[in-house]
Amino acid sequence: MRFTISAAKPEDCKDIERMIMELAVYENMPDQVKISHKELERDGFGPNPFYHCLVAEVPEEHKSKDGNTTVGYVIFFYTYSTWKGRTVYMEDLYVMPEFRGNGIGKALLGAVAKEAKDQLCSRLQFSVLDWNKPSLDFYMAKGAEDLTAKEGWHFLRFHGMALDNLAQEAP
Amino acid sequence: MRFTISAAKPEDCKDIERMIMELAVYENMPDQVKISHKELERDGFGPNPFYHCLVAEVPEEHKSKDGNTTVGYVIFFYTYSTWKGRTVYMEDLYVMPEFRGNGIGKALLGAVAKEAKDQLCSRLQFSVLDWNKPSLDFYMAKGAEDLTAKEGWHFLRFHGMALDNLAQEAP
Repeated sequence: MRFTISAAKPEDCKDIERMIMELAVYENMPDQVKISHKELERDGFGPNPFYHCLVAEVPEEHKSKDGNTTVGYVIFFYTYSTWKGRTVYMEDLYVMPEFRGNGIGKALLGAVAKEAKDQLCSRLQFSVLDWNKPSLDFYMAKGAEDLTAKEGWHFLRFHGMALDNLAQEAP
Repeated sequence: MRFTISAAKPEDCKDIERMIMELAVYENMPDQVKISHKELERDGFGPNPFYHCLVAEVPEEHKSKDGNTTVGYVIFFYTYSTWKGRTVYMEDLYVMPEFRGNGIGKALLGAVAKEAKDQLCSRLQFSVLDWNKPSLDFYMAKGAEDLTAKEGWHFLRFHGMALDNLAQEAP
């Protein structure tokens, strides 16, 4: 199947919003999604964007059963390791189920890896749920390391009242 | 003990490099550090900095046994959740052992939390090693959630040859 990968444009944000929800449903956490295409437009396309996004599109003749031609996306941003310097963090990589097996996920991942190399990043990082065996297998087969299993890194978060309380301790 | 918290300047990078190494020694991974003040200067102070840094300083009369007055730092950057939008990620928070117990860590953490709120971020995230009980206790007591324990998120990475191979699959 032919497809193209290109930088997302603001008008892609409704499709991205739709696929973010599809991915959250797959991850059993659809209630967590509090974002809409409006925030995605505001945060991804200014002079200092909070994220970068690539979308995968298929020709009209291959459109999905619901009529979509934008069938996958990847969202990433630049982070920083105080041990190794510039790093890319991949927040989401998603291909609609009916379009899997055509190399679209591999192409999206490859495009992010190339961005990482072009920007002198030595690492591409991301998070996967421990029960999501298909995704873990996909990444491990390509040489990913599981830092939680190997070194014991746990992922922590402050939000809501806990974050508000911390902010009040600012000097 | 009096101390001040302020945005790091390029001339602080040698002190930051020193404390990055002290933290890596504490985390039992000093061999992992491949960064120097030169990369820290290059990457933290341009028009699109890869990270932000605050430093804690004490007056000359309280200098450390090795003569340092810059005694703590925090490094953070902005990331993005496709569920909740703008997020701050705290890469390192460190206070030299002989200066702990004076509220410096709390002040650095508070300053980052305030930055997060000011930038409309709803989350402050970070990673901790599972054996680092003092740090886990410090954060959990302030209301942090352990997403690895609670939801099963694992932290994965491509680097070296695996990253090079991926980049060659870019379309």
